[in-house]
Amino acid sequence: MPLFITRIRVPWVDTDAAGVVHFSNYFRYCERLEEEFLNTIGLPFGSFRHLGIWLPRVHASCRYRWPLRFNQTARLELVNLELGRRHIKYVVAIYNEDEGRLAAECEMVVAAASRERGVAVELPGELVRRIKEYLESGEASPASGV
Amino acid sequence: MPLFITRIRVPWVDTDAAGVVHFSNYFRYCERLEEEFLNTIGLPFGSFRHLGIWLPRVHASCRYRWPLRFNQTARLELVNLELGRRHIKYVVAIYNEDEGRLAAECEMVVAAASRERGVAVELPGELVRRIKEYLESGEASPASGV
Amino acid sequence: MPLFITRIRVPWVDTDAAGVVHFSNYFRYCERLEEEFLNTIGLPFGSFRHLGIWLPRVHASCRYRWPLRFNQTARLELVNLELGRRHIKYVVAIYNEDEGRLAAECEMVVAAASRERGVAVELPGELVRRIKEYLESGEASPASGV
Amino acid sequence: MPLFITRIRVPWVDTDAAGVVHFSNYFRYCERLEEEFLNTIGLPFGSFRHLGIWLPRVHASCRYRWPLRFNQTARLELVNLELGRRHIKYVVAIYNEDEGRLAAECEMVVAAASRERGVAVELPGELVRRIKEYLESGEASPASGV
Repeated sequence: MPLFITRIRVPWVDTDAAGVVHFSNYFRYCERLEEEFLNTIGLPFGSFRHLGIWLPRVHASCRYRWPLRFNQTARLELVNLELGRRHIKYVVAIYNEDEGRLAAECEMVVAAASRERGVAVELPGELVRRIKEYLESGEASPASGV
Repeated sequence: MPLFITRIRVPWVDTDAAGVVHFSNYFRYCERLEEEFLNTIGLPFGSFRHLGIWLPRVHASCRYRWPLRFNQTARLELVNLELGRRHIKYVVAIYNEDEGRLAAECEMVVAAASRERGVAVELPGELVRRIKEYLESGEASPASGV
Repeated sequence: MPLFITRIRVPWVDTDAAGVVHFSNYFRYCERLEEEFLNTIGLPFGSFRHLGIWLPRVHASCRYRWPLRFNQTARLELVNLELGRRHIKYVVAIYNEDEGRLAAECEMVVAAASRERGVAVELPGELVRRIKEYLESGEASPASGV
Repeated sequence: MPLFITRIRVPWVDTDAAGVVHFSNYFRYCERLEEEFLNTIGLPFGSFRHLGIWLPRVHASCRYRWPLRFNQTARLELVNLELGRRHIKYVVAIYNEDEGRLAAECEMVVAAASRERGVAVELPGELVRRIKEYLESGEASPASGV
């Protein structure tokens, strides 16, 4: 059961001359899922700027299984969220909903970093608490976020 | 005789499912020309941040004449530069060099604005002086910037 | 009263180092509005490929009034649609809904062209008919498409 | 000693509101390196379309080490190329040349696939031969491709 779900209708601009979504855009879709997840828990990306903390990506990967085409619906499922002291790992499955196929399996690791010194710091306590609350609540169901 | 010339080899990612460069990317090409022009006159975009001045776009337009395809060379020609007290207008012709065709005719108007108050201000004197020097010098020839 | 309305939550990737939506993305937002409009009337972009007809952009322009920032809502209003024999002109107002400001005024002209010969042809009859039906029906109200 | 080198001056549009190159663009930079590599060996991406073969990405990953900012030079080094019967793996190091720092370590795996049936096929013989020739020749040196 996925922890969070969102959908994207593939816009024309995301396709390339092979008629499919360009591989780099899957990473943008993963980030979109993160943005909507953080909005849902009430701590939008950028909430910790006043503490001098930002959340840069430290690793990202996708395994591509099946193409997505213009106007098809990509269903993004957060299938796992690993919460460390200094990082969050999002594991995302992207489905081609129109064809009922798994399109890609992606991971994105986000760290907390001090804006000034550029070094890794601990994740803000409030962020950790809200994520835990979300995961432990009944909200984390396929119905949420759709 | 164009005032400045630069070239872009069309990358795959700039194409769409029709096999041609997406229309929004022509505006990015115009901005690339501006960046290289400002680098050439020694005042890169962003040089006036310390004065609290930035250079937002206030108008942009393109008339599309002929497609550009993957791996073709776009030749960007700055065919006119209108220098006002508060704005610069770049008039750019984009050629499909492989096919010897005019691909698009574009205009981009950039204003000076105070970062703080968001209001229009006069262009920084140094920028105006350097642009005039460039235009009046023999540099402004097809050979430059290629 | 706008003919069609849609909304976009600004994703992080659409911003630039000035902290605002990059000017080229407003054109992508206009295209998104067109895609959703054509989906609404049941003739998605690409519907006429089997007739050898596509709908390239021939002109596009934006006048920028006010910035859009990350996570703000852009409200896209189709304020006018001019239907010619060979072209459609979309007139779009983009609002920064969070700040209640007009962000940009854009126009996008789309022509019908023969894929094979690359020359202008008449718009497909079915497209013209459906657009007229939409415009004449009560559907063309602010409530639609939201 | 890298097998191939190319450079990209970071354009404004590639930055985001944190003032750095958006993480998804590193994948586009890797693809740009591949495009220029294939151009160099005389078999541009798309050369095998007439055989019904294309080269979709099947896996891509980046580990991010250090940011890249507007107008800085990204030096892309192909540090390894793994040539299988059905795939090519590009191992790419991206340097922030202005600051003398490793910016990211990326991998991109490309497979050969039949356009019609969508299944994996062997890499075209000519592509394998040219890549081997390039790797075995003295061309594969830091000076090449710069």
